[in-house]
Order: sequence, then C-alpha cells, then structure tokens
Amino acid sequence: MAVERREAGMDHTDVVVVGAGYAGLAAARAVRAGGRAVVVLEAAGRAGGRALTDRIADEWAVDLGAQWISGAHTRFAALAQEYGADTYPAPSDGANLLVEGAVRQPFRGARPPLPPLVLVVLAQAMWRIERLAARIDLARPWTTPGADRLDAMTAATWLRRNLPERRARHIAEVMVGEELCVDVGSVSMLALLTTIRAAGGVEAGVTAETVTRLFVDGADGPARAIAAELGSALRLNAPVTSIRRVPEGLSVRGEFGEVRAGQVIVALPPALAGRIGYDPPLPAARDHLTQRMPMGSVLKAFAVYERPFWRDDRLTGQALNLHDPVPITFDATRPGGPGVLGALVPGRAAHRLAALSADERRTMIVGSLVRAFGRAARDPIDWREKVWADDPYARGGYGAFFPPGVLTSIGSALRQPIGAIHWAGSETATEWAGYIEGAIRSGERAAAEVLATDGVTAVRE
Amino acid sequence: MAVERREAGMDHTDVVVVGAGYAGLAAARAVRAGGRAVVVLEAAGRAGGRALTDRIADEWAVDLGAQWISGAHTRFAALAQEYGADTYPAPSDGANLLVEGAVRQPFRGARPPLPPLVLVVLAQAMWRIERLAARIDLARPWTTPGADRLDAMTAATWLRRNLPERRARHIAEVMVGEELCVDVGSVSMLALLTTIRAAGGVEAGVTAETVTRLFVDGADGPARAIAAELGSALRLNAPVTSIRRVPEGLSVRGEFGEVRAGQVIVALPPALAGRIGYDPPLPAARDHLTQRMPMGSVLKAFAVYERPFWRDDRLTGQALNLHDPVPITFDATRPGGPGVLGALVPGRAAHRLAALSADERRTMIVGSLVRAFGRAARDPIDWREKVWADDPYARGGYGAFFPPGVLTSIGSALRQPIGAIHWAGSETATEWAGYIEGAIRSGERAAAEVLATDGVTAVRE
Repeated sequence: MAVERREAGMDHTDVVVVGAGYAGLAAARAVRAGGRAVVVLEAAGRAGGRALTDRIADEWAVDLGAQWISGAHTRFAALAQEYGADTYPAPSDGANLLVEGAVRQPFRGARPPLPPLVLVVLAQAMWRIERLAARIDLARPWTTPGADRLDAMTAATWLRRNLPERRARHIAEVMVGEELCVDVGSVSMLALLTTIRAAGGVEAGVTAETVTRLFVDGADGPARAIAAELGSALRLNAPVTSIRRVPEGLSVRGEFGEVRAGQVIVALPPALAGRIGYDPPLPAARDHLTQRMPMGSVLKAFAVYERPFWRDDRLTGQALNLHDPVPITFDATRPGGPGVLGALVPGRAAHRLAALSADERRTMIVGSLVRAFGRAARDPIDWREKVWADDPYARGGYGAFFPPGVLTSIGSALRQPIGAIHWAGSETATEWAGYIEGAIRSGERAAAEVLATDGVTAVRE
Repeated sequence: MAVERREAGMDHTDVVVVGAGYAGLAAARAVRAGGRAVVVLEAAGRAGGRALTDRIADEWAVDLGAQWISGAHTRFAALAQEYGADTYPAPSDGANLLVEGAVRQPFRGARPPLPPLVLVVLAQAMWRIERLAARIDLARPWTTPGADRLDAMTAATWLRRNLPERRARHIAEVMVGEELCVDVGSVSMLALLTTIRAAGGVEAGVTAETVTRLFVDGADGPARAIAAELGSALRLNAPVTSIRRVPEGLSVRGEFGEVRAGQVIVALPPALAGRIGYDPPLPAARDHLTQRMPMGSVLKAFAVYERPFWRDDRLTGQALNLHDPVPITFDATRPGGPGVLGALVPGRAAHRLAALSADERRTMIVGSLVRAFGRAARDPIDWREKVWADDPYARGGYGAFFPPGVLTSIGSALRQPIGAIHWAGSETATEWAGYIEGAIRSGERAAAEVLATDGVTAVRE
C-alpha cells in the first residue's frame, strides 16, 4: 500500500519529513511503522542534528552537541536499548569545584560551599520557582494563572526581585544560562518556569543531573542507526527551500529537486522552519512564532589530555565558574580513553567568543581550565570545539527560547498543524523540551498526527 | 563606465539592491547618482514596501501602511518636493476623544482629561523617560551607561515600577503599543528609549505628532516616482532566495534567475533578510540578529462614510480608546473626498484580530468606531484593511523591534557590512528608525558605503 514512485526528477511519497535530527528520525521511523512511505530530507551531510559525535584518535567519542541521558529520558533510553547503544555513568567520583576568580573551593553534592545566608536565599528562591513551575499547564503554558504577568518580565527581573543577595543571584543566573543557553535578561520568566516544569521541576532536575549517563560511542549513535535503517529514504545534503500546496498535497523543493507528499512533518527549530518559503504563506501567528522564537547560543569545547589528571586530586572535573567565560566544565573521558575535559560556554559569552579566532577562543578556554584544574590543564594534546551558532543548519543551541511576551500572544501556534504541514522538533515537546528526549517525543507525536489522518490526501499508485 | 550586460540568463551589474521599499529605492537612486549601475530586485509586484496606498472610488488615497510626515522628516520632505508629492495638514480642528468603556470625554491638545494625580504620575514618568532617553548613544545604544540593566528588563517592568497609578500606566502602555506595534511586555526598555531618542525625544515626538501632514495622493507617491525612474533596473515579482560569494563578487538568485554584482545592499527588515540563504553562511552574531529582531504586528482599517460626520460634533476623529481592540483612530479624509476614519490595531490585539475572519474583524472594529463616534459610524459605505503580519513580503509592521537582551549582546551586527553585503532598511537608521524617514536615511547611508569602496570588485565591461 505505502509506496514511492519516481517520475521525471520528481518523487512521490506519503509523508515527507524535513530534518534528520532526533525529532525527524523518530517521526520517520514511526510513520514507516504505521505503514506509510516516507522520505526524509536533511540539509546537512549527516543525520543527528544537534547531536554530533566527533572522535579522538579515530576512536574515543566526544559529543560536540547533546550528550547526557537521565533516568527520566524513557523514550531515548528505549531507542538506545533497541539499537544497542551502550552508556556509562557520567564520572562523579570526587569533589566538584566552585571557582570565583582566584579562589577554588572543592565541594561534594549539589550544594556549593557558600555562606549560610547565600544558601538560604538560593533555597528560598528555588522553592518559589518550584511552586510557580508546579502551576504551569505544560500543554498550554499561556493559560496558566498569572501567565500574562510572568510572561511580561524577563527571568532577570524575577531573579533580581527574589534573590536580593548578589552571589546567590549570580549562581542562579549561571545555572539558568547553562540550562537555556541564553542570558536571564533575554528570556521570559514564564518560559523559564515552563522549561523547568517540562524537565520535572527543580529538585527532580537536580536529582536527574546527578544520575546522568553518557554514551560510550556518542549520543548520536541511535540517530546513525535509524538513519542506516532508513536507507535511501533519507536524503542528505538536501536543504528544503519551499513547501507549496499542490492539488495532490504538498510539493517540497530545493536544489536537490522536488518531492510530493500528502503530509509533511517539519522537524526543525522554529527559526529554521521560518526560513523555508511557504505557499500559501503561513498564517500570521505561525509566521510570527518563527520570527520570535530564536535559538540560544552555545559553544562546546573539549581539551584532551593523556590521562584524566584531575582525578589524582580527587576532582570530578565538574566546576562551576562564576567569573569566567567558561561557567561549566565536566569530565567527558570515555572508559579506557584519554582524559577529556569538556567546557560549556552559553549565552552572550558564546556570542563574544564566536567573534574571536579559533586560536583566541582556545587560549581563553584553556585559561579557564587552568584556573579550575591547575597548570596540568595548560597543554591539551588535542582539541575539539563546536560553535553552534555558526552551524548553518542549527544556527544555535541547545534549543530555541521564548523571549518575553511570545508564549502568551502566539504560543498556541507552536504545535498547531497548518493544513497538511505538521510541526516537530524538541521545542514543540511538552515534556523535556530542549532535550533529545523531547525531540524524540515530538517526532512520535507528529507521526501520530499524520497517521491519525485517513490518508485521503496521500499519494498512492 | 557604469554598465549592465546580460549573458545566458545571467545579468551583471555594479550593485544589486534587494527590496524596493523606501530604503532600497533611496539606496538605488543614490548609487545611480554616484555613477554605478544598479539592479533592484523586489519580491512583491509593486514598489513601496510598508508604504502602500489604496484608492476609494478609484480616486481618493488611503494609506494602508506608513502615512504621516512631520517637520523633522527632512529627507522624506526633500524627496516629496523633488517628485511633486503634495501634502496637507492632518485634520486637527476640534476635540479629540478619550474613550474608556462607555465613557467618552472630548479634550483638546495632547493631555487627555484625567484626574490631576494621573496626569502628574504620567508627567513624572515621561520626564524620567526623557532623561533616560537623552543618555542613549544612538549610533551604539549598547554602550550607553546602564545599558545592560535597561536591556535586561521589558518596558512593562519599567512602567510597572515607575507608574504606580493604574490608569496612567494603561495610557502609557497604549501609547507605547501604538508607537512600536508590540506590547510593552515584549520589548526591551533600552530599545524603547532608543526608539524615543531616535524620534527626537518624548516632547519633540508629541510636538511632531501635532504638526504631521498627509500625502494627498498617498505616502507611496515618491516611491512610485523613483520606481518609474528606475525603469527596467527595477524588477518586480523577483523574490531573492540566495546570495552567494563568487569570484567576481556576489551572485543573487531566485526563481527570476541570477544577477551578479560587486556589491549588494539588502534593504529588508532583519527577519526577512534572515530568510535569504547566504553562502558562505552569515557570521553567528548577524544570523542571530535576524533571529532575534522580529517584526511588530499591526493592522490598519479604514471606514469610509459619505462625509466626515464627526466634524459636525467638532471632533477631530482622533480617539484614544483604553479598553478596546482599536486603541487609536484618526481622520484620513482627503481634501474634497468622502469621510474616512482610520483605525490602528497594534501588538497582541492585532494577532487576535488576524486570527478572525475579515467579517468578524470588520464587525469588531466598526463597534469601536461606534463607541467613539456614535451610531453614524455604524454603516460605512466602503471598507479597506491591511493585516501586515499576513503580508508575505512584510510579515509585520510598522517595523522590527528589539526584545530584551538583543541590543546589548548582538546589536552591533545591525549595520556592520559582511564583506560586500551592506544592510539598509528603516530598522538600521540611527534617526527616525521605524519611519519612512529612517528608511530613506538608511538607504542613502548604505549607498554611501558602497560608493566609498573603490569599485575594484564591481563588474565592468
């Protein structure tokens, strides 16, 4: 029943999926499992989207994009198991570091070594956030009581009011920045609460982070396996430039040619989905959502050492750095592999570093590693980095965010199909939005929408 | 010296201008005056961009887009004079109305009839805004002292703090909404101050608005005249989809074909400029600016009556409506023409109305006119409207705005050329950004950038 046919440079299929990140791949897989033919069009030369694994010495994986999986990530875990992708516990033996300028303080557990006043202020604010987040209606955050007021302010405004203590506020700002890859002065407080709720709440989130795992062969392993399974149904290097309504459904075009289908799933972040030309044009609310939901900014760098020397000092490799371009570092050493320290630079620091040369960036980031882990960090034997805002088919990371006023005015356009066009992508997930887990769930949800149609519009032989 | 040549479906010129709004037209005109050949590529089937004139009874102009010119708009006035576009004073004889629910209060001058407390609170806030705006560095607002703090909050946050009186705050919110076409909860306070400063300050702005003029034949008259002058150098229905670097300069392509040039001026709002594919890809900061500088939302409607009946009651036709989808109405009657009442719906009300049918919208807007001007407004004999967010080549209006955090992190990418690509458009103007005046100045500035190059990269025979 489900078929593909080819005629004069134009292909026909039941469903076209645009984008082969985890959302698109999960959608394609589910569409096929539902008995429909699918073609996946991916702009880049590889599948995986914002999951991207590089290798040290052609062997040891380093995840330049998404990397962690926690116990709550059930759909991702299921895929990982199905495709035999092994994980190992993120290294956590030893002490973490709190670095403030020249002062390094080791600590264990989730509470940094701060004066009781600071910890109390932080705990109070977290309790308030937890209580506010618990009210969020995840399917429709814009209908949450008090939504208008919380959406009309930045997270910076809320933190300034609720964290009168400077150091406590600064820690909260760094933590939010690391979570959303945008500075607290750019994101809506309602959006922050929604993200927190979508990740199970503050406490759950902190707990989840202490039991995360990493993929031995990289977080894009299951993506590569699904891509292989799709075979010729996945077309790489095929950026889509237009989606047009035609009598038999939709025509999806680019320099690669044209594919026609009854239904299309666009599995891209909204900003990138907005760069496709639509005919007829998208309704105002949907178009404005693509204008008003930009990508966060993040760069990730990995310094490789002969061995994980920080473990000699009983350090985990995790550092929270309050006055540095690199606020977060972590141990990314693979079992049996060379020592690898990862560095995350989110938000406006990522913008500043993106404007520098690769050499200048490396010098700055290594400087941060030295301040945290000492002179042994000075001369990495290898170096990998990824500036996600420079990636032409991601244009930022981890995900898109909601500036103030967007959720409550046009948020309802996020998942609403436009005719036979459906929207997937981690940003459209109600749970774990911004994570691979959310991407997979969003793809499966979009596939279910497509499969729920009677297929009348689908092209069949 | 300056030439165009054509070969096998590909054209060569010195400078390509993308977009034939006032910015692009002013740029093209100045480039030609500087002795270089130009090709202007316009996506729509007409020139004028966000200035768009319709006609009642094939005769009387109504401006569905930009319409007013004030005494400070010197470049626009010069163009109008050069092309013989006549203006007349915006009707201002009689009383304005303040409408609050069922209560209508006539008033004269700029001060609505409000209790002294409300007026004092409003005046204090305006004085504070004036003082803050005076500090703004218009060429580089992100370097203004205190910029980070003002950019990390929405205008809603600032107004809530500085206008403790509810009615005063509400009036301020309506005024800001009408100026920027976005709700105060979406825009950065730094951006609001920059806009106010770019329009000469609060007092100057209010004064300017009392001496505005309208164009007898519509505000797009000078644009149509420049377009006629450009002749075949202006190509309509030619949406640009890609700009690529080639050995001799830049290749600008779309379904219309290809034009090659030494320099390109992109005279589009940032969000639309971001929908063009660039090769090599734009640097991170510029790409993020196109993601993070969305269009405001506005719809404009005109109700036509046999005669301007409100003048019988000594009303100007101007109303400030505090609890209605239509916050602002005005008299758009042409000298000798039928009575025309214009209605402006900005921001989230525009989004709500855009989602309705044209009939429902008309019913709602006429309801507002009746509340302000009585039952005589009930049955317009003609009706014109424009939902700017639905326009595929404007996608909003009046202009783009800065959400919190954008100016201070990536604002410097606004005018910075990328190689031989230059940026124009009202949004890039330092003075009168968001007005036709700003568009013209930005186009002339971009043309000056192009003419300042030695032309080595330009293609000549």
